[in-house]
Amino acid sequence: MIILLKKNANQTQIEHLKESLTSMGVQLNVSVGQSHTIIGLLGDTSRVDIDMLNALEIVESVQRIQEPFKKANRRFHEDDTIIELENGVKIGGGNFQMIAGPCSVETESQIIEVAQAVKAAGATILRGGAFKPRTSPYAFQGLGAEGLRLLSKAKKETGLPIITELMDAAHLSLFDDVDIIQIGARNMQNFELLKQLGKINKPVLLKRGLANTLQELLTSAEYVMAGGNEQVMVCERGIRTFETRTRNTLDLSAVPVLHRITHLPVVIDPSHATGVAKLVPPMALAATACGADALIVEVHNDPAHALCDGAQSLTPEDFAEMARRVKAILPYSMR
Amino acid sequence: MIILLKKNANQTQIEHLKESLTSMGVQLNVSVGQSHTIIGLLGDTSRVDIDMLNALEIVESVQRIQEPFKKANRRFHEDDTIIELENGVKIGGGNFQMIAGPCSVETESQIIEVAQAVKAAGATILRGGAFKPRTSPYAFQGLGAEGLRLLSKAKKETGLPIITELMDAAHLSLFDDVDIIQIGARNMQNFELLKQLGKINKPVLLKRGLANTLQELLTSAEYVMAGGNEQVMVCERGIRTFETRTRNTLDLSAVPVLHRITHLPVVIDPSHATGVAKLVPPMALAATACGADALIVEVHNDPAHALCDGAQSLTPEDFAEMARRVKAILPYSMR
Amino acid sequence: MIILLKKNANQTQIEHLKESLTSMGVQLNVSVGQSHTIIGLLGDTSRVDIDMLNALEIVESVQRIQEPFKKANRRFHEDDTIIELENGVKIGGGNFQMIAGPCSVETESQIIEVAQAVKAAGATILRGGAFKPRTSPYAFQGLGAEGLRLLSKAKKETGLPIITELMDAAHLSLFDDVDIIQIGARNMQNFELLKQLGKINKPVLLKRGLANTLQELLTSAEYVMAGGNEQVMVCERGIRTFETRTRNTLDLSAVPVLHRITHLPVVIDPSHATGVAKLVPPMALAATACGADALIVEVHNDPAHALCDGAQSLTPEDFAEMARRVKAILPYSMR
Amino acid sequence: MIILLKKNANQTQIEHLKESLTSMGVQLNVSVGQSHTIIGLLGDTSRVDIDMLNALEIVESVQRIQEPFKKANRRFHEDDTIIELENGVKIGGGNFQMIAGPCSVETESQIIEVAQAVKAAGATILRGGAFKPRTSPYAFQGLGAEGLRLLSKAKKETGLPIITELMDAAHLSLFDDVDIIQIGARNMQNFELLKQLGKINKPVLLKRGLANTLQELLTSAEYVMAGGNEQVMVCERGIRTFETRTRNTLDLSAVPVLHRITHLPVVIDPSHATGVAKLVPPMALAATACGADALIVEVHNDPAHALCDGAQSLTPEDFAEMARRVKAILPYSMR
Repeated sequence: MIILLKKNANQTQIEHLKESLTSMGVQLNVSVGQSHTIIGLLGDTSRVDIDMLNALEIVESVQRIQEPFKKANRRFHEDDTIIELENGVKIGGGNFQMIAGPCSVETESQIIEVAQAVKAAGATILRGGAFKPRTSPYAFQGLGAEGLRLLSKAKKETGLPIITELMDAAHLSLFDDVDIIQIGARNMQNFELLKQLGKINKPVLLKRGLANTLQELLTSAEYVMAGGNEQVMVCERGIRTFETRTRNTLDLSAVPVLHRITHLPVVIDPSHATGVAKLVPPMALAATACGADALIVEVHNDPAHALCDGAQSLTPEDFAEMARRVKAILPYSMR
Repeated sequence: MIILLKKNANQTQIEHLKESLTSMGVQLNVSVGQSHTIIGLLGDTSRVDIDMLNALEIVESVQRIQEPFKKANRRFHEDDTIIELENGVKIGGGNFQMIAGPCSVETESQIIEVAQAVKAAGATILRGGAFKPRTSPYAFQGLGAEGLRLLSKAKKETGLPIITELMDAAHLSLFDDVDIIQIGARNMQNFELLKQLGKINKPVLLKRGLANTLQELLTSAEYVMAGGNEQVMVCERGIRTFETRTRNTLDLSAVPVLHRITHLPVVIDPSHATGVAKLVPPMALAATACGADALIVEVHNDPAHALCDGAQSLTPEDFAEMARRVKAILPYSMR
Repeated sequence: MIILLKKNANQTQIEHLKESLTSMGVQLNVSVGQSHTIIGLLGDTSRVDIDMLNALEIVESVQRIQEPFKKANRRFHEDDTIIELENGVKIGGGNFQMIAGPCSVETESQIIEVAQAVKAAGATILRGGAFKPRTSPYAFQGLGAEGLRLLSKAKKETGLPIITELMDAAHLSLFDDVDIIQIGARNMQNFELLKQLGKINKPVLLKRGLANTLQELLTSAEYVMAGGNEQVMVCERGIRTFETRTRNTLDLSAVPVLHRITHLPVVIDPSHATGVAKLVPPMALAATACGADALIVEVHNDPAHALCDGAQSLTPEDFAEMARRVKAILPYSMR
Repeated sequence: MIILLKKNANQTQIEHLKESLTSMGVQLNVSVGQSHTIIGLLGDTSRVDIDMLNALEIVESVQRIQEPFKKANRRFHEDDTIIELENGVKIGGGNFQMIAGPCSVETESQIIEVAQAVKAAGATILRGGAFKPRTSPYAFQGLGAEGLRLLSKAKKETGLPIITELMDAAHLSLFDDVDIIQIGARNMQNFELLKQLGKINKPVLLKRGLANTLQELLTSAEYVMAGGNEQVMVCERGIRTFETRTRNTLDLSAVPVLHRITHLPVVIDPSHATGVAKLVPPMALAATACGADALIVEVHNDPAHALCDGAQSLTPEDFAEMARRVKAILPYSMR
C-alpha cells in the first residue's frame, strides 16, 4: 500500500499516522520529496482500512499494491486449481468441459431427453434450474425440490454430474446429490450465503454480478475460500452496458485477465450474456479460443415452448454443431 | 403488449399463436399491414412470458406497454404512499425526513452521542449498521446482535426511531425493536430475502442495486408488496459508471422518474453514492430540490477513526449546516 | 508520479530506468522496501509517458499524482474564472445565469418570440441551434448560416447575447456575432477543432462527451486553453448508462467535483440529459442547489411541433415557473 | 413504426395526428383496443421524427421497427460487401485479413522493419499513425505529413497497402497514397468529417465510439455511404464500462450482431480495447473464432521505447505466434 501525503501535512500529524500504522504490524518506508511525502506500507496490509486512511486530513491518496484476495490469488498459489467431480470429470488446469442443459427443469422426459442429447454431443456436465431467480414475483419460479429430484433422475440415467443454482442456504439439505452448486449473478455479493458455502465440501460455481469488477468477483470467491471450501470456479455471464442489441455485454477479456490473477477455473456462459440463441455458438467459440476452462450453455429440446429463457436456448442440433467446432478450435486456444 | 410478426410469418403459425394467447385470457387486436402483422394484447398480460414470445420463429419483436409491477405502480394507486412509524413520524406524500447516523455502530457512547447530535440538527430517524455487508471477508463485519442492542439503547435515550440493515432472514427475530428494515444494494435481487419481508409488518427501505434499472427496483419492491407488506420505500444510492472521481454516480433523475411511475416514497443516500464527505452536502441539497422524500446520511462524531467508511461521513457540525440549508430549500422543491 | 517496481527487478534495469528519468528533468525519490522498490517522480512530470513506463518489464504499476491538465487546474489557479460577455453578463465566481432557447432555430418569429419569453422569465443568454449534429444523415441538419442570421436578429431585438454550436472550424467566419461558441458532446475529443478554438478570442462552452470522465473533459478544455484562449466553461449534459427511463443519466456530482478541481465555470444542461420535458425543472433545481454556475435549458413556444427534440423542450410558462423556483433556491445553494 | 396512444386520447386529436402522418406519405394501420389505440406506420418512415411524435400529448410511446440506416442495412443488401484494395487484397465476404503495425510512425527504419516483420508473419495491410488523437495537448501528436511520407516508403518497400487515421478533412490532400482511411473512435460522430468522406472514393474504416451503440455505429457509416462512398468497414475497439483491469471492454458479441444487421466487413482491434500486450493474442483468437473479417493489431519492434501506447504493442515474435494460431482457428470460425 502506498500513501501519498498532502503538501501541507504537518510533522506531528505525520508522526501520529506512522505510529498508528506501525501498531498494526506493518513496516513503513517513508520517502520525503520536495513537495510530497510518500509512505510505503510493506508486510501484511490486509488489516489496514483504505477508507480510514483516505479520510485522514493529511492524506492525498492511497493506492493498494496487493489485491484484497489471497486464497484466490495466483501470486500465492501458482498452479491452476483443478476441480474434480465424483465421477472423475475435471475442470481447469488444461481440462476443458462443456456444461449444458435447459434453463429450467420442467418435466422428467424433458430433462432426460436434453441430458441424453447434450451428452451425445460431448457435454460432460448437466445444468438445469430448479430454484429460479426471476426479476418478477409473478414469473415462473422453478419446480424447486421437485426439480432437484428430476435432475437426480437424469443424473442416474445418463451418468452426467449435475449443476444447479442455490438461492437460499436454508435449501442446502436438498442439494446432497448435486455435484456443483451455482451461485447466480444477483447473489454474488450475498455475503451471508457465501459464508455458508465456505462450510461445505462441494464445488461452487460463482457467477459475476452484472456490475461487478473482476476483483470483486475474486473477493467474493475469497469469502467461500476463507471459510475453508477452496473448490471454487468463477463465471463471466455478461455485464451491463448501454448496448441494447444483446441482453448484456459478454466481457471475454475477463478470461485472460482472470487467468493471470487467479488460479481458479474460468467458466463462460454465452447464453445469459447474449440472450439470443443465434449469438451463442459464435461467442462459445470465442470463449474457447481465448482460453475458457468450461462453457455453460442452455439447450432445450423445444426452445419455443420453454418455460423460461427459451429465446436464448439452442436446440440439441445447434449445440452439437457448436460442440464440433469448439473441439476443433481447442488445441489452438491460448492462455 | 404489442407483438410485431415477421414479414414471412405464415397464416397457420399466426393462427396457432393467436389461439395460444387467447387461452391465457388476454384479448387480441390484430392489424394486418402490407408488410407486417401486429398483434396487440389487451387485458391482464402479466402471465404472458415475453421471452417465450421472442423465441417464436414468426415474431420480430415484442414490446411491453404495461410495467411488470402492479402494487408499486402509480397507475393503479394514484395517491402517494405515506409510511408512518410508531412514534408518528411520516415519510412520503409531502412529509420529508432526514435520516442520519454512523455507518457502523461501534460503542454505546458513539451511537448515543451521534444520535443526540443529529437529532439536535433536525434528523428524525437514526441510522446505524449492525450487520455490515463488506466486499472483503477480512474487513470489519459489524457488531451484529450487540450493535442492535446499542441501537435500541440510543432509541430509548433519544426517542429516534431506528433503521438498520438486514442481510439474512435468519436474523429477523433480532429486529423486533427496529423501526425500518434496510435492504442493501447488493441484496436488491436476493429474492428469497424479499419474499420473507413480504410476510412481516414493518417498513422496508429497499436500496437500488449498482447496475439495476428503476423498473427492476420497483419489481423488487413488488416482491415485498406481493407478499402482503406494502410499507416499502425505495432508495437511490449511486450506480456504477466509468467515472472514477466519485465512488458511484448518484442518479438524481431517479427522483422525478420514480415519482411519476410509483407512489412509494423515494429516499436518497448521498453518502454511499459519492463516498466523499465534502460531496455529501451539495448532493443532499440537490436531492431535496428535485423532490426526494427523505435523505439518509452518514454522520460520525470522529470520521477519521470510524471503523468503516469514515471517508464519507460528515461531522455533526457539517450535518447541522447541511440540514439548515435543506430546510431552506424544501419549500421550493419540485415534484 | 509514483512508480512501483516489480519484486524481481534487477539492479541494472533499475539504474537504467533512473538515468532515463533523470534525463527528462524530473527529480527522483527512491525507497527500497523488503519486497518492492518505489520511485517517486517530483517536479514537472508532464513529459513522462505513463504508457511507456507501464510497458517496461520491471514496472508493476504507475500512479499519477498530478492531473494531466494545468491551465484548467485549480491547484495552479485558485480563483474562480469569471466569463464576461460583451454586454457585461458574467458567469462563474458567484455569478449565476440561465441560458434558454429552442433546440433549433426555425423561423424569425419563432426565435424572437422564444427569446422575448425567456428574457421575461429571467434568462440572460439565448441558445439556439443553427448547425445541428444529428445521429442520422436523413434528419434535419439545422438552418446553417441562415440560422445564425436569425439568431443575430433575435440578439438585436432583445439584447440577449447568443450561444450556438460550432461543428466545423471551416464555419468559424460565420460566428462573428456569436457570444459563446458551444462544442457538442460528440466533438469533445475532436482535437483538431479544439486547437482552432485555442486561437480565437471568444468564450467556449465545452460539453462533456457521453462516456468521458471529468478528467478528460478538463484535459479537452486544456487543449483550448493551451492555445491561448482561457475563456472556457465546461458543461455536464448526461452520460451513458444502462438506465433506459431517461435518455442519459445526469451526473450532478460533477458539479461539486469540478468545482474542487477546476476554476472554470460549470454549466448544467438538464434538457439533453433527461430528454423529457417534465424532468427538466426538477433537475434544473437540483443543479442549482448543488452549485451550478449556469443552466442551459431548451424552451420552445410550440414543443409539439418543434423540428427537433420537442420532447425535451419546456413551454415558456413552464420555464418561467422553473426560473421562479431556481431564484428562490439560489441563496441556499452550496459550493 | 408503431405508435401507442394514451388511454385518454380524444378523437379529434387522433384524427389530427392521422392526417399529419398521412401527409408525410406513410400508410397507417389503426387498431382500436379497449384501453389503447395503436397506429402502425408502414412504408418509408425515415422522414417521421420519433422525438416529435413522443412529444405529442396523446402519445404513450413510439417504437421503431425499421433501423434508421438503409445503405448499411443487410435487409436491403443481402450480400456481404467486399472491400478490394488496389493490390487485390480483399476484406469481407469470407476474405479474412490481418492488419498490423506500430501505433505511431516514428522513423523510416522503424516503420520499414515492422512492416517487413508483420508481412513475414502473414499480415497483408500495414497500419501506422501519422496524425495521432491524444487526450492531452502536451502528448506526442504524431509526425503528421512526415509520417505519411514514411508510410508510403514502407508501402513501396514491402508492397503492403497502408491504413492510417484522418483527423481533419483539411488534411485529405495528403492521403492520396493511403489505401484505407481510418476514422478514430473519438470522431465517430464528427458528422462534418463523415460527410467529407462520402465524397471521396477510398475505403474507410470507421471505429465505434467508446459509448456508442452498434446502431449508432451503422448510422454513422450511413453518413459516409449516403454521400456516395459505400466502401466502409466498421471496427469494434472496446467500450467504456466500470471494469478497470482492461483499458476498455472489448464487446466481441458485436461481431455476430453486426453480421446479422449489416453487410459491411467487421474489424476487431484488440490492442486499443485491452491496452495490455499480453491480452492481445487471446482476444485476437477470440475475435477470429466468432467471425471477424479482419484484425487490426499494434506491433512494434521495441515496445518498451515506443513513443505511444507501447504497453499494448506486441513484439514481431508475439505477433507471428498469434498469427499462426489465428490461421489454425480460422476454418472453424462461425458466422
